[in-house]
Amino acid sequence: MRITAIRERAVSLARPVSNAAIDFHEMTASAVAVDIDTGRDVVTGYGFSSVGRYAQSGLIAERFAPRLLAGPDLADAGGTFDPAGAQETMRAGEKPGGDGDRAGAVGVLDMALWDAAAKIADMPLWRLVADRGGGGVGPVPVYATGGHYHGDGDLEALADEIRGYLDQGYSRVKIKCGRDGLDDDRARIEAVLPLLGGRGDRLAVDVNCCCRDGAEAAVMAEAFAPYGLAWIEEPGHPHDFAMLAMLAAGWPTPIATGENLFSWQETRNLLRHGGLRPDRDLLQIDPPLAYGLPEYETILRMAGAEGWSRARMLPHAGHLFAFHLVAGLGLGGHEVAADPGFVIGGLPAGSAVDDGRASLPDTPGIGFEGHQALWAVLGRLAPR
Amino acid sequence: MRITAIRERAVSLARPVSNAAIDFHEMTASAVAVDIDTGRDVVTGYGFSSVGRYAQSGLIAERFAPRLLAGPDLADAGGTFDPAGAQETMRAGEKPGGDGDRAGAVGVLDMALWDAAAKIADMPLWRLVADRGGGGVGPVPVYATGGHYHGDGDLEALADEIRGYLDQGYSRVKIKCGRDGLDDDRARIEAVLPLLGGRGDRLAVDVNCCCRDGAEAAVMAEAFAPYGLAWIEEPGHPHDFAMLAMLAAGWPTPIATGENLFSWQETRNLLRHGGLRPDRDLLQIDPPLAYGLPEYETILRMAGAEGWSRARMLPHAGHLFAFHLVAGLGLGGHEVAADPGFVIGGLPAGSAVDDGRASLPDTPGIGFEGHQALWAVLGRLAPR
Repeated sequence: MRITAIRERAVSLARPVSNAAIDFHEMTASAVAVDIDTGRDVVTGYGFSSVGRYAQSGLIAERFAPRLLAGPDLADAGGTFDPAGAQETMRAGEKPGGDGDRAGAVGVLDMALWDAAAKIADMPLWRLVADRGGGGVGPVPVYATGGHYHGDGDLEALADEIRGYLDQGYSRVKIKCGRDGLDDDRARIEAVLPLLGGRGDRLAVDVNCCCRDGAEAAVMAEAFAPYGLAWIEEPGHPHDFAMLAMLAAGWPTPIATGENLFSWQETRNLLRHGGLRPDRDLLQIDPPLAYGLPEYETILRMAGAEGWSRARMLPHAGHLFAFHLVAGLGLGGHEVAADPGFVIGGLPAGSAVDDGRASLPDTPGIGFEGHQALWAVLGRLAPR
Repeated sequence: MRITAIRERAVSLARPVSNAAIDFHEMTASAVAVDIDTGRDVVTGYGFSSVGRYAQSGLIAERFAPRLLAGPDLADAGGTFDPAGAQETMRAGEKPGGDGDRAGAVGVLDMALWDAAAKIADMPLWRLVADRGGGGVGPVPVYATGGHYHGDGDLEALADEIRGYLDQGYSRVKIKCGRDGLDDDRARIEAVLPLLGGRGDRLAVDVNCCCRDGAEAAVMAEAFAPYGLAWIEEPGHPHDFAMLAMLAAGWPTPIATGENLFSWQETRNLLRHGGLRPDRDLLQIDPPLAYGLPEYETILRMAGAEGWSRARMLPHAGHLFAFHLVAGLGLGGHEVAADPGFVIGGLPAGSAVDDGRASLPDTPGIGFEGHQALWAVLGRLAPR
């Protein structure tokens, strides 16, 4: 089973919102298609970058696609197509450390290989992943993420947005904070809490690394503590493990982090030095930004050996690939980019939300073909 | 003072050698030229990637060159061209963490901006850097790096190579170890030591991250301890700070690391968690792989506050840019890729080695124009 062609194009994710760290006007993502010759026919797998780290057209064209195309057959000893075998091929000649853009280039290609593998096996990806020794197969706990900064009339727009998610069947939501100071943060939290029955545990806030040092983080933690929030996400720089240890030792609010770590070694340092609590904190490593599913399985084994259950794993970003991994590996929950205007938003076709849980789709592969906004892009990469 | 054009091309670094982590047959580097309109004329600055992390053609074309070309004037309040102002422009819209390929893309552009700045100031870069509040202006302590694996007749070729460096005026050398086991490592060390009067403190060994865990590193440290080496470089994965702390606590041999860390935050974690000793260990952060000179100045300030003198800073790789920073900032020493067959090898034109120190050149800028192998590449990017 050989890879016969790889196609990639950069796609704009332009949308009129921002978080505390970046805005999305210039943001791009890679759409990729990989053709696999199975010996019987050609199966095409698709991938689409997670958000926030740009398309990787150059790295894919310069290093990773040529290696894959020149690499060995990807059938395992039993004749099954095995995407895990592509990791060594793609990462040959790469020095250790420096896991950033290249981890996303490898990750989006890995996603396409898993889409193909599930199609070849004629099953949805979540089932293929579960069959590899994974987890649960029931409905997936989900939460709606959104609550970006809206500009004029921000609080009313925020409340309207959250009401919309509750109407769709979500029971937990996440909003952005951290951009305009603690008074503004409090106003945003207090605009949303009444819609959630006043229950802080149904509300998470993502401050997108806004705290520049431990002193700022301590002030923020103290200000947020009375709300009993579900979690505070990305309090400071993602490598400031000492700040995380200080927060974990000082306040009960759960901490969520890891979306800006891109290897199992970076994650190991988070667990070694970040002082996080396996009974409450949450790890948000985003597989397609961090080399893909095989690296994520390494992270699960490493974290498991340190006492972290899969229930504490909450992948970043809310893309379809994460949905299948959450379902197939039995992770803690799935973030849904619930804004219907966002290209990666929503759930796979055939999945519906009820009382905070999403049902599992039956379509083979990841299901890009049934996702209107994504297929408008990916369909253009189909074989001709 | 505006940037009017940026030209980049990828260059092969193919050469028939390898280290314990990668071979160089497929390795590439970015050659860049940046035109600055000073209002009086157009000055072109050049940059050339450090080694081991590939050309960054895609990232430069997709993100960093467009931002620079659309960015603000780079004259400071006094009308002087200030490359440091370009950092914010280039790094806008980049999320924190994930400092890998992009750090090299920004870094090679930063190098070209400093080459231009020194030419505009009509002085060699080392003097411009020293004038910014830097260090010494005397001859630069240097050591010859080489001692790669040669294939057939390895030990004889290794000894011949080292003799050649001593004949050129070098008194300290670094060789590669770690690829083929400790017996082979001992044979390599013992082939070289007699040429150095038996003095281990004139010999460093670079094992290129070969130790997979602390147990392997401990065995290696114990085997190398009797030689009294100048240092052991990159014992394990660059993010395995716990391994470094174990080695630093257990053996007197100095440890050198940092070439695979690409931001001040990663370096801060090395200092927080790596247990390194400011009286002997060495930090090898490579500025053009780590966003360039402004980030390196931040690292110097941060490390200085933790008790690290500039004498313990030893930038990786041996390129001309590092030579100017070592001289202008008064760092501990300069690595010279002394193999004349390597494109980035040697010293700036006008610099000569005597008794382990290199004299300072007078040519304005970095001096690429006087370096035969590099100018053969960079000259093709000159304005037409």
